[in-house]
Amino acid sequence: MIKQISLLALACSSYAYAEQTPKNIIYMIGDGMGPAYTTAYRYFKDDPATKEIESTVFDTILTGMAHTYPDDHTYVTDSAASATALSSGHKSYNGAIAVDTDKKPVKTMLEIAKERGMITALVATSQINHATPASFASHNESRRNYNEIANDYIDNKIAGKLPVDLMLGGGTAYYIRDDRNLVAEFKAAGYQYSDDFNSLKQINQIPAIGLFAPKGMPSALDENPTRLAKMTDKALKLLDKNKKDGFFVMIEGSQIDWCGHANDIACAMAEMDDFAKSIEHAKAYVDKNPDTLLVITADHSTGGLTLGAHGQYKWEAEVVKGVKATATKLTKLMLEADDLKAIWTANTTIEYTSENQVKLEQAKKMGSKTLNLAIKDIISKASFTGWTTGGHTAIDVQVFAYGPSSTQFVGSQNNTDIANKLINFIQKK
Amino acid sequence: MIKQISLLALACSSYAYAEQTPKNIIYMIGDGMGPAYTTAYRYFKDDPATKEIESTVFDTILTGMAHTYPDDHTYVTDSAASATALSSGHKSYNGAIAVDTDKKPVKTMLEIAKERGMITALVATSQINHATPASFASHNESRRNYNEIANDYIDNKIAGKLPVDLMLGGGTAYYIRDDRNLVAEFKAAGYQYSDDFNSLKQINQIPAIGLFAPKGMPSALDENPTRLAKMTDKALKLLDKNKKDGFFVMIEGSQIDWCGHANDIACAMAEMDDFAKSIEHAKAYVDKNPDTLLVITADHSTGGLTLGAHGQYKWEAEVVKGVKATATKLTKLMLEADDLKAIWTANTTIEYTSENQVKLEQAKKMGSKTLNLAIKDIISKASFTGWTTGGHTAIDVQVFAYGPSSTQFVGSQNNTDIANKLINFIQKK
Repeated sequence: MIKQISLLALACSSYAYAEQTPKNIIYMIGDGMGPAYTTAYRYFKDDPATKEIESTVFDTILTGMAHTYPDDHTYVTDSAASATALSSGHKSYNGAIAVDTDKKPVKTMLEIAKERGMITALVATSQINHATPASFASHNESRRNYNEIANDYIDNKIAGKLPVDLMLGGGTAYYIRDDRNLVAEFKAAGYQYSDDFNSLKQINQIPAIGLFAPKGMPSALDENPTRLAKMTDKALKLLDKNKKDGFFVMIEGSQIDWCGHANDIACAMAEMDDFAKSIEHAKAYVDKNPDTLLVITADHSTGGLTLGAHGQYKWEAEVVKGVKATATKLTKLMLEADDLKAIWTANTTIEYTSENQVKLEQAKKMGSKTLNLAIKDIISKASFTGWTTGGHTAIDVQVFAYGPSSTQFVGSQNNTDIANKLINFIQKK
Repeated sequence: MIKQISLLALACSSYAYAEQTPKNIIYMIGDGMGPAYTTAYRYFKDDPATKEIESTVFDTILTGMAHTYPDDHTYVTDSAASATALSSGHKSYNGAIAVDTDKKPVKTMLEIAKERGMITALVATSQINHATPASFASHNESRRNYNEIANDYIDNKIAGKLPVDLMLGGGTAYYIRDDRNLVAEFKAAGYQYSDDFNSLKQINQIPAIGLFAPKGMPSALDENPTRLAKMTDKALKLLDKNKKDGFFVMIEGSQIDWCGHANDIACAMAEMDDFAKSIEHAKAYVDKNPDTLLVITADHSTGGLTLGAHGQYKWEAEVVKGVKATATKLTKLMLEADDLKAIWTANTTIEYTSENQVKLEQAKKMGSKTLNLAIKDIISKASFTGWTTGGHTAIDVQVFAYGPSSTQFVGSQNNTDIANKLINFIQKK
């Protein structure tokens, strides 16, 4: 009976917490991060020296899965339609940036948060006007209209104010143009500006905009393994200082998708690692700030990644760990050098067999594209990694939640349901 | 305040129900049913005439996902190691039938249920001594020892009794042998026996054994689209009549995996449909019997199935729906006939283009295997279905639960955790 009562008490207290409306929302999107990527990441991080298989941060907060189809019966979405669903609760067509199937703007949760006086932020490793962040703060009939989308970050006023108080990512090529200098306009509007990632620490106020590359930021594997984690940490510190009426931030692991399109498994695992480290920062923030809800999902899966291929019952995580550069970088190095073996052995643990030698030398003669494909083919075969497409697939993606009302994300749901629940929290505040 | 109290009451009542120990357990395993299969099934069942995309029975009861790796660092399991994990809570090696890595028997939940006086049952569309059911009621160092495993269903006594009270599936080839007639032994032990699926209705007692094929039962697509659903309905009716001390039943959608190995998408969707209809019977039983827990998972994913392939952003469910026979049957028909076009157009909605004609005619000249591959290649390309292997992959599988204590299956878990939770319920009874 005492046990019953204590169970009841526990139930009621946890239920009460589970029903609490969060003050701050951290929304993280792993672009292209289908369920094969989170599984692969667990085995990529596994220590073969221990008998157990270690869990990842994803394993600690899984709550459900989401359906990603766009507003038609093709079932396979692009990042724009899914980001529109995830930002506004509206299904739309592939290519749509926060507009409906009639190309009419739909209100996004970032805009609603801004109307409610919350501080808003966007963090991405792509250009900050790429499809996913764009669908939170701008409206356009096509994701390809990069300049128009960048303009919208200034022109799309919410209650007389600029929509986004803090932006960290890439994109100078779109923000400093001959026809318009948006950086100058942001500065005039009081934004602190930086284009040097090494001076990220010096961004010390909101509003601020940091554009650390002409377009997408350099890849995690080739140049900066923790740039998203560092931007996430910086953003949460700045938001925490300015959160009087709460904050909304969308943080995107943009390039998981790009590695998936390239069918480059080592590239993808490095991006997953940066995204996982960013999630650890966000989880730690929620632990310190129990009025903050963390929700994580993906917009779709990319590449048709599978762990195991060609009838073999294994996936060689050690081979993937041994690859120290993206296929793009290896291609560049091999095109510039004569000694392919030296480059291969310095950047992979895969034996430079005569078969691989012939394959790479012949591919090099055919040019950059063929060499790039040959490099990835050897790595995929050696690690038993499968791919079926250079595009996206329709498989449901996972949903992770941590903090107040996280129980509302348990089970199978539509990607629009995730948006509608978050919008409901913002409107209840 | 009144709302608070009613919320509290709701919390406590739902919590109390969520904590109730189930009296009966229905455990369903979709062999090879990775997350791409349940997503594909939703779109396969989608009515293109309606704007909405209809949900499936899987969407109504998803609770989490499970890690399927065997007891090593290869990460990709076979059905024996995973069935051992799912039946006993012990990770083992690929090929193990309810034995540990030292080849020592591990106790299964079916055996524990039998010790506790529960009625036990196994239902499968494979032979009933195939890896998954075998790992619940027998022990063997190798899944390939089919005769020894079949013998164990008689020789492996639990508290002086036979382990399984009701068996429905295939397997006469292993049960009626020159060296031993197990069917005669079952009859002598008081079992009702049938080898005619059409007389399934006439099985009216427990103990009983129905063996409806020499090995696996005919495929859902080619012969009997609802044989698992009918066996599930029959088993639940018989168990309900005899459940004095509760029952445990394991129901396997065995051939989802076989279609996956064959990379035959139409075959797989027909097996998914039979499995889904079986789940609907089980769910309806739980609705009528709230002391019964339904738990569903998969042992692994098969074939590296992806929805979308070759860079195209679509999956053509209508093409899959239009295929009326397995590639195995189409191959047989085409080898026996001269008019390939007649067979093709009678069994698919895919245009018999001159390209397809040449491909099939040339493949037929090369023989059965080449023709079979050509048929599947045309169907996969036309439906934008991707495959990466004839074997298994390591991706996490989904977990579904419905009924008392179903909340214990929320989140990311190991496949052994599922077994340990169910064993705990059986031991608490």
